[in-house]
Amino acid sequence: MGRYLTNIPLEEGLNRYLQEIKYLNPLKSEYIDIDKCLNKVTSSAVYANLSSPFYNCSAMDGVAVKSSSTFMANEQNIVSLKDQEDYIEVDTGDPIPKEFDAVIMVEDLLEKENGIIKIYKPAIPWQHIRCLGEDIVESEMIVPSFHKIRPQDIGAMISAKVEKVKVFKDFKVGIIPTGTELIDRHKVPKIGDIIEFNSKLFEGLLIGYEAVPVIYPIVEDNYEKIKESVLNAINECDMVLINAGSSQGREDYTHDIIDEIGAVLIHGLAIKPGKPAILGHGQNKPIIGIPGYPVSAWVVLENIVKPIINELTYKENKKNQSIEATLSKRVMSSLKYEEFVRVKIGNINGNYIATPVKRGAGTVTSLVNADGVIKISQNIEGIDEGSKVEVELLNDLYGIDKTIVSIGSHDLVMDLINDELTKSSFGKVKLSSTHVGSFQGILSMKKGECHISPIHLFDVESETYNEAYIKKYIEEDMALIKLVKRTQGIIVKKGNPLNIKSIYDLVDCRFINRQNGSGTRILFDYLLQKENIKKSKINGYEREEFTHMSIAKAIQNDDADCGIGVYSAAKVFDLDFIPICEEEYDLLIKIKDLEADFTKDLLKIINGKIFKDKVNKLGGYNLEDSGNIMIYNYNIEN
Amino acid sequence: MGRYLTNIPLEEGLNRYLQEIKYLNPLKSEYIDIDKCLNKVTSSAVYANLSSPFYNCSAMDGVAVKSSSTFMANEQNIVSLKDQEDYIEVDTGDPIPKEFDAVIMVEDLLEKENGIIKIYKPAIPWQHIRCLGEDIVESEMIVPSFHKIRPQDIGAMISAKVEKVKVFKDFKVGIIPTGTELIDRHKVPKIGDIIEFNSKLFEGLLIGYEAVPVIYPIVEDNYEKIKESVLNAINECDMVLINAGSSQGREDYTHDIIDEIGAVLIHGLAIKPGKPAILGHGQNKPIIGIPGYPVSAWVVLENIVKPIINELTYKENKKNQSIEATLSKRVMSSLKYEEFVRVKIGNINGNYIATPVKRGAGTVTSLVNADGVIKISQNIEGIDEGSKVEVELLNDLYGIDKTIVSIGSHDLVMDLINDELTKSSFGKVKLSSTHVGSFQGILSMKKGECHISPIHLFDVESETYNEAYIKKYIEEDMALIKLVKRTQGIIVKKGNPLNIKSIYDLVDCRFINRQNGSGTRILFDYLLQKENIKKSKINGYEREEFTHMSIAKAIQNDDADCGIGVYSAAKVFDLDFIPICEEEYDLLIKIKDLEADFTKDLLKIINGKIFKDKVNKLGGYNLEDSGNIMIYNYNIEN
Repeated sequence: MGRYLTNIPLEEGLNRYLQEIKYLNPLKSEYIDIDKCLNKVTSSAVYANLSSPFYNCSAMDGVAVKSSSTFMANEQNIVSLKDQEDYIEVDTGDPIPKEFDAVIMVEDLLEKENGIIKIYKPAIPWQHIRCLGEDIVESEMIVPSFHKIRPQDIGAMISAKVEKVKVFKDFKVGIIPTGTELIDRHKVPKIGDIIEFNSKLFEGLLIGYEAVPVIYPIVEDNYEKIKESVLNAINECDMVLINAGSSQGREDYTHDIIDEIGAVLIHGLAIKPGKPAILGHGQNKPIIGIPGYPVSAWVVLENIVKPIINELTYKENKKNQSIEATLSKRVMSSLKYEEFVRVKIGNINGNYIATPVKRGAGTVTSLVNADGVIKISQNIEGIDEGSKVEVELLNDLYGIDKTIVSIGSHDLVMDLINDELTKSSFGKVKLSSTHVGSFQGILSMKKGECHISPIHLFDVESETYNEAYIKKYIEEDMALIKLVKRTQGIIVKKGNPLNIKSIYDLVDCRFINRQNGSGTRILFDYLLQKENIKKSKINGYEREEFTHMSIAKAIQNDDADCGIGVYSAAKVFDLDFIPICEEEYDLLIKIKDLEADFTKDLLKIINGKIFKDKVNKLGGYNLEDSGNIMIYNYNIEN
Repeated sequence: MGRYLTNIPLEEGLNRYLQEIKYLNPLKSEYIDIDKCLNKVTSSAVYANLSSPFYNCSAMDGVAVKSSSTFMANEQNIVSLKDQEDYIEVDTGDPIPKEFDAVIMVEDLLEKENGIIKIYKPAIPWQHIRCLGEDIVESEMIVPSFHKIRPQDIGAMISAKVEKVKVFKDFKVGIIPTGTELIDRHKVPKIGDIIEFNSKLFEGLLIGYEAVPVIYPIVEDNYEKIKESVLNAINECDMVLINAGSSQGREDYTHDIIDEIGAVLIHGLAIKPGKPAILGHGQNKPIIGIPGYPVSAWVVLENIVKPIINELTYKENKKNQSIEATLSKRVMSSLKYEEFVRVKIGNINGNYIATPVKRGAGTVTSLVNADGVIKISQNIEGIDEGSKVEVELLNDLYGIDKTIVSIGSHDLVMDLINDELTKSSFGKVKLSSTHVGSFQGILSMKKGECHISPIHLFDVESETYNEAYIKKYIEEDMALIKLVKRTQGIIVKKGNPLNIKSIYDLVDCRFINRQNGSGTRILFDYLLQKENIKKSKINGYEREEFTHMSIAKAIQNDDADCGIGVYSAAKVFDLDFIPICEEEYDLLIKIKDLEADFTKDLLKIINGKIFKDKVNKLGGYNLEDSGNIMIYNYNIEN
């Protein structure tokens, strides 16, 4: 259809939309039992049906008396009172009969024997009595309207004999997943199918916005069928989200359907990701078109759907918790859009460091792995490395503070360390691993972005691992925690159908490479050079993956014939493996951090039996130096 | 039993207790459907069952090609490709068949006609293809153990074909209300009954702690019956709260029952309120004795039960949101206890002012009306007026910021203003009224604790209202918003059985007075003096209540024969009324605030028809000057 999308700034578009729709369809209210009212919002003030207390009662353990019969008592004139006539015994909370008007505490009785008490001072009228209505007087207001009901409000209402309260009804939001390629998550997916999961992502987010989500069945890309589903949902709900079909492709019907049912107010916002959002309404209720990519959808829910719901349910549009952090890398941004950049955050010696993660809007794991989001205004072209940025948190700050940040090379043993750390600390210590390769790891350590860097960097000159790189790139005093020696080799298909035996045989195969800067790439380049094989001879040299697992999976799937990686990855996917060499995979750490808690936590795991057993089970590792610490202290050395 | 209670500091006691119980009974885990896992905590890491995408697919709309068949293409050498042989059409997300290894975007095609495309540059292998596993590789970890599951985690898990996850089971907390005087909230209460509401207060708090509350039936004060209920609950739950019987009275069995079932570790903490808490365990599960007064109970739940649950469910013990505020009055505190003082908070021109509310541990409304809590350490004797204090919030800061703070005299018209303000602003503006009497209202205004003060202060010398007091007590330029003239008089029982006609007739009746500093008290004292009646002649002169409603309710209940108050209060309780005079009830405000938003909001209500109609319906009010503004500008006057 080639429809033209507008590029309206988010805030302007949202405000324009809210102005149009805020009074269209006010939220209904209902009387509900007090049992069900927690966290609901009152639509009318609640008044007391009964005073609390609803009778005069004793505030102390003691005796109830007529104050007039005590007025003469003093230390010279001890007064005696008779049980059931002049006084009765009362415990705290006991009702005070009409004929009495004061309580004397048990401690203030001179004597109490055989139904006679003796007192030496007068009782002031109404002393130690909790009078009727002391807490609440019948007909008094307990909570006003538009009040979110808390546990203490329920307590007060029950004590005032309130049984039902008038509250705003749940705000129901219909979710309609559309797309011929979508299948229900319970079905077995075939090639070409996409397992529908956005509706469950939306459901969780909507619960967080205190709305009630209703997921409708998947609808194929058919104008009439989608329209029918929207009409049905708009009848049953207070708002409808259509996912997706919000763009301008051949089968993107959302715009025209909203237009037919009601009106599209805005199509296209200056945000990235999330641009092709549609803001419309029908039957006086909001209908929103949500883009299909999960990250785009997430941005639209958080920044458009959430404020709309808050406005229509009379709630504050609360910001998520945010912190100030230092950006570890320059981030570029387009002047055409406000951009939402997901970042990981590490607390490195008390400084929050934010490191951007992959930007693809299709990768839902980028939302899983990110700790927060940076918003870059439309009028900014980018943010420099080292700048202070505001980060809206996706994770608990407490969790972030307790997380050991690892940036560098990937190996399965890092996952084992993570799992053991978490389990042994009952979730109080975690490990966050970013896989950027050994060389980037060293640079990250130098910049103070991480606590540890797992590295395996082969130095061609000295034919040793790691030490040469540390000395060359970092001026600070460093240490290496020796972790594992691991076997690198050629990963090939099960049964090795191409009969690959050495690096020579890689020529003419479909190869899959690791990214530049990874230790494995450096090793491979060294091997090619040593054997005098030109890179251009390797079919697939340019095709890069970031982990051993991705290499192995691609080979298992017959997208490539071979790649370089560790034995354990080949084993996971049941592939064959031709060993080439044993390399040293170690943890780089600052000397000044050797005494830090996180180092102790790590060493406890690394030196523990459980970890060693699990590493041995993976296969292809040698633990002979594991846990040893090498010190690179330049002051001593020079 | 006269058991001796210890006085252990809260933190010390809690830490000692947690050390004893934290490993006793680790939380069980279970596999649950992914539909039900939002906000649950994983007990095992979750791994991908399927890669995402699980096939190579197109990242663009275009054509899939064999890259080898495009290598020769350049601007001098246009290459033609045939549909279904050399290329196929693909949309974004479409699978790429095995024979193809690159996608050319539709924009990069020179021509497309009759099943033939023409290209002018080669396709790099794997360009514009989202490779299998780009987001998630099968067998990769999606989330670690001890991870609280968020919406995006559910999205990622579904896309990786995860159907069940292993999470920690719900933490069930049994609540046992005990007490012979307690009745179920659905029953009709008789004198001496107490409507049981603590269990519902606890239930709401426990839901906030992410535990699952189970309320057991009320048990009378009987050792064997309570024991039986506790044994039953400890079998079914992970923790049990017994309410109350935690003190040392005749029928306080909680200590001995816990001791019999398991062990009491601590009985008595240095906190106020909440001292007689009992921390024990049985069958390796915590059993806690909670005091009976609602505020004491609330303190014990927030400060003891919550951290215990967080520890046993492996969660952070998050503090409630807190702000810094200025204390408006000196607060005294005992060196014996850490004290928890409830305060109201007002945002007065950008400064948060905290004003303590009634301290009685029995008044659940003090928790309803408070905006926050101040903790006063045990080693501090009190905090001076004007000190900065940390306030843990019980209410939304947003709500506090939007609240007009009124401190001064009480009248029903203030409730009407509150209700109208809230309704007309959809809950965005509220009024918080504290009833301390007119004179304290003037002092609060002088100290900057409030936005407005409702006052009706009769000046004996000039025989006029309000102006003389303002000039005498406040140096700043002030204004009065004229609100209502209201009829004060003598409130007597229905039918006026004592035939009271004037102030003279109050002698020898049972009178109930208003508190010192209230406008009504000042009026009454003036009337007595004018008529030459001695205060000592008035039976009940010393008995003080804080509102017109309390006076009227006491008379209705035959706790007094008469009192002074407004007509509207007499009318609410269907009492008789002997008019004495008409007085001026006005809102005191600073001149500099006359242009403030809150003043505009107030004036809009006061000048509106709805408000006037409702006031007239109450009866006893005269609105002739309502909404007029009197200016007291000393610079102009002097």
